Amino acid sequence: MKSERTQVGIIGAGPSGLLLSQVLHLEGIDSVILERRTQDYVLGRIRAGVLEQGLADMLRQAGVGARMDAEGEVHHGFDIAFGGGRLHIDLAGPTGGKTVMIYGQTEITRDLFAARERMGGRIVHEAEDVTPHDIDGDAPYLTFSRNGENHRLDCDFIAGCDGFHGVSRRSMPADVLKTYEKVYPFGWLGVLSETPPVSEELIYASHDRGFALCSLRSRVLSRYYVQCPLDDDVANWPDEKFWNELKTRLPADAAARLVTGPSIEKSIAPLRSFVTEPLRHGRLFLAGDAAHIVPPTGAKGLNLAASDIFFLSRGLIAHYRQDDDRGLETYSAKALARVWKAERFSWSMTKLLHVFPEDGAFDLKMQRAELDYLAGSSVAQAAMAENYVGLPYE
Amino acid sequence: MKSERTQVGIIGAGPSGLLLSQVLHLEGIDSVILERRTQDYVLGRIRAGVLEQGLADMLRQAGVGARMDAEGEVHHGFDIAFGGGRLHIDLAGPTGGKTVMIYGQTEITRDLFAARERMGGRIVHEAEDVTPHDIDGDAPYLTFSRNGENHRLDCDFIAGCDGFHGVSRRSMPADVLKTYEKVYPFGWLGVLSETPPVSEELIYASHDRGFALCSLRSRVLSRYYVQCPLDDDVANWPDEKFWNELKTRLPADAAARLVTGPSIEKSIAPLRSFVTEPLRHGRLFLAGDAAHIVPPTGAKGLNLAASDIFFLSRGLIAHYRQDDDRGLETYSAKALARVWKAERFSWSMTKLLHVFPEDGAFDLKMQRAELDYLAGSSVAQAAMAENYVGLPYE
Repeated sequence: MKSERTQVGIIGAGPSGLLLSQVLHLEGIDSVILERRTQDYVLGRIRAGVLEQGLADMLRQAGVGARMDAEGEVHHGFDIAFGGGRLHIDLAGPTGGKTVMIYGQTEITRDLFAARERMGGRIVHEAEDVTPHDIDGDAPYLTFSRNGENHRLDCDFIAGCDGFHGVSRRSMPADVLKTYEKVYPFGWLGVLSETPPVSEELIYASHDRGFALCSLRSRVLSRYYVQCPLDDDVANWPDEKFWNELKTRLPADAAARLVTGPSIEKSIAPLRSFVTEPLRHGRLFLAGDAAHIVPPTGAKGLNLAASDIFFLSRGLIAHYRQDDDRGLETYSAKALARVWKAERFSWSMTKLLHVFPEDGAFDLKMQRAELDYLAGSSVAQAAMAENYVGLPYE
Repeated sequence: MKSERTQVGIIGAGPSGLLLSQVLHLEGIDSVILERRTQDYVLGRIRAGVLEQGLADMLRQAGVGARMDAEGEVHHGFDIAFGGGRLHIDLAGPTGGKTVMIYGQTEITRDLFAARERMGGRIVHEAEDVTPHDIDGDAPYLTFSRNGENHRLDCDFIAGCDGFHGVSRRSMPADVLKTYEKVYPFGWLGVLSETPPVSEELIYASHDRGFALCSLRSRVLSRYYVQCPLDDDVANWPDEKFWNELKTRLPADAAARLVTGPSIEKSIAPLRSFVTEPLRHGRLFLAGDAAHIVPPTGAKGLNLAASDIFFLSRGLIAHYRQDDDRGLETYSAKALARVWKAERFSWSMTKLLHVFPEDGAFDLKMQRAELDYLAGSSVAQAAMAENYVGLPYE
């Protein structure tokens, strides 16, 4: 067995693990990332692209914000379409100038890979059967195999950044974990197309036939979604059918302006709310999707991973620099306090904008009344805006 | 059959009917109120006592605000208790100085009865089998019997202010009405006691054992509630058990300060959300509980009746004074727009603060996250405040 040692062993080379590794490196803390997949596979994942200012600032401070600032688009608001009209939600006004940055998760990951490589960061790809050991003690370690060879990575701490299906959460003793979950009775059918977006800003559309979202990755790359049955199949959705359904759910002016084209990616994703507590056991720390999932309405998933990494990196830095463990001890509580508020926002945005098969006539009226109230209330709009740009990290 | 004629025939001598009659009288419009019960019976009803500024202003303008201003208590805020602590919701600050008035519905009704009597307003008590006729035509009329004698009241318009169980709504053709309803899986056990209130302001308490509310009618008359099973019976709740349950659900400081005493009224009320659309058919207009019910959380019932009367009286005044029927034609839409927003607020306050038997662990976390978010967000508190003091009439 080959053996090596680092200070922080990180499981997963998604944006959480990469960002943690990068932030720690800048503070002189050594880490190794173990990733089950190849770099190309990781970069092939299509994910969200609405970054809270907190995440954008973290990327800048970590020295990986240059391309984002050059190529990303700053959005000062978004639209909610309902009842044939549109309500504009201003982000900057009610939040003291906060905005969101449109920049694909894939691009962030690419920038982080490049930065890690430039700095000689160690990332082990195609690490199979990664397993944490002795997380309860003072000397945890990770084992994995690669190309048929067994490896051991000794470390002080393990960061579980390996997503919902990763090994980290399963490595916590079952009796210390409490999990909370809600599965929604529908999915999102998403299409990526090399067409100019229908709108400079995002449009969240509430319609009798179901929710729709006009999003984008850049000025030439559009990302559109329509709510669909949970058991639906992309095979049921040739491009033309998708575009027609999307147009039906958009306000007339947007539908008329929509530029369609061949889809370059098409997939159906379920919607789920999920939280595990606590985020720490012994020397294993969970961050991002390994610990919590939000439905995509409101675009909080990547942003929550970022705030986890913010709290976790500060805890680790204080440990190594000031021999102060309070940040590590409070990591779970601090990160979860923010997670639960974002879970609430994602859940309430989802409830506000989707058609729920179980809803009766009164529930539909409540949904509409909430939209009507929002349209007439500057403070309700401000509450939506402060959640959308991201609640403070502390 | 005895016959008489008026301009507006009003069914029901509750606060809606009395206020309408009073407002119309001041504009020289004649009305007659038909009431099934005696005046003492009407005054014996225990009802809410949190008046929005809009209602307080209407009472003043109708010349019946003097005793309210002398004896009522202006509240500038209320408390939400949860997690062992208390969150103060300031009403005046975020709403440009708006407040609520604590003054029992019984007292308003008493003041209105006195004013109508002083002005020679005609109220027929113990009017049985009140029935509207020809509401589709230009000459509607009401029939009723009293002391075994049949009566007919001809009028231009009929105002149905006779509550949820009244005849007015049932007199609309079934095929024009749409009704929306939600019944909640619990009730409120209420106790009235001649004790000083535990707090100058109201306390809405969210607790694992269920909701509790500390309300009041005056400085010597307290009104307390605890959430209870829907099929519960007051016989199961001797005073001591009620006080103990209430104390358990309150924050420790409030529980310690609670002054208990014999209950002078004790009852269980179900919670219901209910709306009928439209509020007008031909020459019959519905107002208040005849058309809509809210759960009592948020104290909107009487206040919605007041905004209905505001819109209806303006429509009738414009009809008689300027021969302008636009107010009558838009009555239903205008009143309902405000009704639905108040229904939404009452429903969301009820969901926020009660224990729902069907809620799972995730739902409970969402409830708590909403309270935590509210505690940390000035704009979310402002949104709650603007709903509590009452959204604008137009």
